[in-house]
Amino acid sequence: MEITKQHIEEAHKRIKPFIHKTPVLTSKTIDQISGAEIFFKCENFQKIGAFKIRGGMNAVLSLPEEKRKKGIATHSSGNHAQAIAFAAREVGVKAYIVMPDNSPNVKVDAVKGYGAEIFFCEPNQQAREKTLQDVVDKTGAEFIHPYNNYEVITGQATCAKELIEEIPSLDFILAPVGGGGLLSGTLLSAHYFSHSTIVYAGEPEGAADAILSIKNGKIEKAPFVKTIADGLLTTLGDKTFPIIQQYVKDILTVSDEEIIAAMRLVYERMKLVVEPSGVVPLAALLKNKTLFAGKKVGIIFSGGNVELKKLGEWF
Amino acid sequence: MEITKQHIEEAHKRIKPFIHKTPVLTSKTIDQISGAEIFFKCENFQKIGAFKIRGGMNAVLSLPEEKRKKGIATHSSGNHAQAIAFAAREVGVKAYIVMPDNSPNVKVDAVKGYGAEIFFCEPNQQAREKTLQDVVDKTGAEFIHPYNNYEVITGQATCAKELIEEIPSLDFILAPVGGGGLLSGTLLSAHYFSHSTIVYAGEPEGAADAILSIKNGKIEKAPFVKTIADGLLTTLGDKTFPIIQQYVKDILTVSDEEIIAAMRLVYERMKLVVEPSGVVPLAALLKNKTLFAGKKVGIIFSGGNVELKKLGEWF
Repeated sequence: MEITKQHIEEAHKRIKPFIHKTPVLTSKTIDQISGAEIFFKCENFQKIGAFKIRGGMNAVLSLPEEKRKKGIATHSSGNHAQAIAFAAREVGVKAYIVMPDNSPNVKVDAVKGYGAEIFFCEPNQQAREKTLQDVVDKTGAEFIHPYNNYEVITGQATCAKELIEEIPSLDFILAPVGGGGLLSGTLLSAHYFSHSTIVYAGEPEGAADAILSIKNGKIEKAPFVKTIADGLLTTLGDKTFPIIQQYVKDILTVSDEEIIAAMRLVYERMKLVVEPSGVVPLAALLKNKTLFAGKKVGIIFSGGNVELKKLGEWF
Repeated sequence: MEITKQHIEEAHKRIKPFIHKTPVLTSKTIDQISGAEIFFKCENFQKIGAFKIRGGMNAVLSLPEEKRKKGIATHSSGNHAQAIAFAAREVGVKAYIVMPDNSPNVKVDAVKGYGAEIFFCEPNQQAREKTLQDVVDKTGAEFIHPYNNYEVITGQATCAKELIEEIPSLDFILAPVGGGGLLSGTLLSAHYFSHSTIVYAGEPEGAADAILSIKNGKIEKAPFVKTIADGLLTTLGDKTFPIIQQYVKDILTVSDEEIIAAMRLVYERMKLVVEPSGVVPLAALLKNKTLFAGKKVGIIFSGGNVELKKLGEWF
């Protein structure tokens, strides 16, 4: 399947009543420090605190009544879990969420708060998939993958679409890359709605699978996984990888120290709470200032769901 | 001197080119928790990260050329220091700031960053005043008090004026009280621009001088001073106290635990960085829900200048 311009436009219409049109903010200080003119798309202010609701909502709304009436299932310890729980509640069906049994209480509570049923599993990929399969077999619920799903990708594309509509003629857009849902959506929206805009991805050095996958021309795992950017740990999927391979300009990696320095700037200067994964693109820009000097750059602050007790470890 | 409606209107015109019209934000979650309909005036997004620039800017701009050409002086370890440094730079005169020698580096650097000259003193009121007097004697600079100054009070009044213009017919406004500059300005703006709006103040239990002063009918010191709300440690002045005495409905005190709980809500749910002093009014509302249930309430988030390393102590 190819995601077309029309698919993205239809997705945007479909989800608009359920999401926020998040604000685009600027910071003179960060512009001075970076030498670029930056426009921050604040998905930390989005429903559920992250862009994930766009893809989750679009996927749930795109399912025929018949298919979604037995509920929606997914596995996630993060923002996608909340997105599916929220979206299912909005359309009045059940959500079944498989979460690792070491998930933070705050995330479990958030998912419960949206009325979803939670199934705990051991914190590994095999247990996740097995438990999910059991849930699907038992309930007949429809599985919505966190990123390797065309409707999810199309939903995430609406974020860059909004940014482009508000700030035309951006030279660059930077998005974070984990499984590639947001990045591939961003690439498609830049391609269709602002053809001259070049898209870079920011990736943690401690989850550097995307840069390796692009280099080797096939989906690779990260050489090692150790980063505070806990939303970007996953590998690319067979639906996100080809889009990224075709359109991304480059993938810029950053260390956890650089992520924390970027967070510090955002908290101190913009007074915004953004999660580590969300500032990875800003960290990448600050590490590569010459690439962006004097240019108009859109940066997606992908989410703001931070465990507050972690702040003491970082700052 | 009596501050009139016209004074506030003129101050607003005077400072408008130099300040941000800060946004008014809402939170469905906090409305649900509180039972009130709350409109947050986000002065954490203001220039220098706090409302103080309004009063500082108005006081500096109100000085005749002749009086300000030898520079502006003040003593402050906090947001007023930055406000005066910023305002002096805007009008092209020198700023002389007396700061306690235990001031955090981040605050010293911010003041230096605006080009002010800093004079360190021992961290007590006597040393502050002595050092300030020396500086004024030596330089001929004009002293602008952090709050006990009519132009400062008039400048701070523009914050509630903007809130009232954006959200008409508020039942209540809540502001924090330290020295009383913001509170007295808020009271005057409510009186002149939204006569039926009732104003409450929030005060830390660990700096409870205003509630005692109102009770005793004269300016009192706090019984003890120990709170994380470091912007609210000062006592009322002879220019702020009479206004507060005349117009305030009541002063609601909160503990540091209640301040931290309110901060947690704001960081987690609104994704905003607000300093402890800034959430005191929200903490006061949450402690006194029945007073505000079902009502339209404006709350002033007075500032967002947090030392990030403190976050680990609080959360």
